[in-house]
Amino acid sequence: MDLLEKKILEEGQLLEGNILKVDGFLNHQVDPELTLEMAKDFYAHFQDQHPNKVLTLEVSGIPAALLTAHLFQVPMVFAKKIASRTLSDDVYVSEVFSYTKEIRYEIRVDRRFLKKEDRVLLVDDFLAKGQALSGLLDLCNQAQAQVVGIGILIEKAFQGGGERFRQAGYDLYSLAKIAKFEDGKVVFE
Amino acid sequence: MDLLEKKILEEGQLLEGNILKVDGFLNHQVDPELTLEMAKDFYAHFQDQHPNKVLTLEVSGIPAALLTAHLFQVPMVFAKKIASRTLSDDVYVSEVFSYTKEIRYEIRVDRRFLKKEDRVLLVDDFLAKGQALSGLLDLCNQAQAQVVGIGILIEKAFQGGGERFRQAGYDLYSLAKIAKFEDGKVVFE
Repeated sequence: MDLLEKKILEEGQLLEGNILKVDGFLNHQVDPELTLEMAKDFYAHFQDQHPNKVLTLEVSGIPAALLTAHLFQVPMVFAKKIASRTLSDDVYVSEVFSYTKEIRYEIRVDRRFLKKEDRVLLVDDFLAKGQALSGLLDLCNQAQAQVVGIGILIEKAFQGGGERFRQAGYDLYSLAKIAKFEDGKVVFE
Repeated sequence: MDLLEKKILEEGQLLEGNILKVDGFLNHQVDPELTLEMAKDFYAHFQDQHPNKVLTLEVSGIPAALLTAHLFQVPMVFAKKIASRTLSDDVYVSEVFSYTKEIRYEIRVDRRFLKKEDRVLLVDDFLAKGQALSGLLDLCNQAQAQVVGIGILIEKAFQGGGERFRQAGYDLYSLAKIAKFEDGKVVFE
């Protein structure tokens, strides 16, 4: 998606450890117009799949997931990263290792919000090795919900996660696909 | 706001400790249409204030803040609750005590995203004693940014936070104002 790639080139910053900092428009300050354009792109790609729910993971996936859900006129659910006092015990739980933060954490979705009959569109901001995405898929598998598509904002293709899910048969659609970082610059596929 | 009050009456659940559980449409599963209606209400109330930024606190404030920012065609910024590896050290920090979770935590905004010339509209999901809101105001004060309004989804008026900020001169506008919980039921003002 040209608009997102342009923003990344203009405003993204490369940090050590293959971390791309996009906090000016995506995960600290958020650009609502860009977010809506990204959601429209997901809608166009996945409209034939007729999802009845959009599932993401707090925090940074929420804006794009919300606007995608808005266009599909379905609810958006965000998995939670920590136990909450208002989350019932009746939850699906999976475990995720974050290479960025170097921590292991649990993600949870209340069983009321993920059902066997659901057609789920997964949306997340980054895909690198696919740890978070594996956790979301695990939650859907536990609920026996059908995953009808996976929408990713920024895929770091060189880290291999995306290829693994495509080979497993998922319709994984990334708006910006990074081939490599070279001389401190982002190179798209 | 009738639509939100109706949802609260139909789907909200009262838990011990004056906690209102609204995870079916607001803070775990999110209803995008309701969120847009709430944002429109904020837009109508605050449009003469011409905010150039909407500031909220992760996580649950993000959906309504995003759509409010979308209507105003301005960026949305969410304060972060924990130190992040991609957050620079150049941040405003405040401390918040959560009575719901019984923990003390820091909230942070990168200095790049909160400036002296900013006209900030604060948006948050719940207002009880006003701990989180005090933290957000503190961040704005540190940046010398002007707070032009405060939009709250659900105010627990009986806990006194709202009254304190109104007396301090803020234009604090709540979409649903709860007078009390009585016999396990929500009573609006």
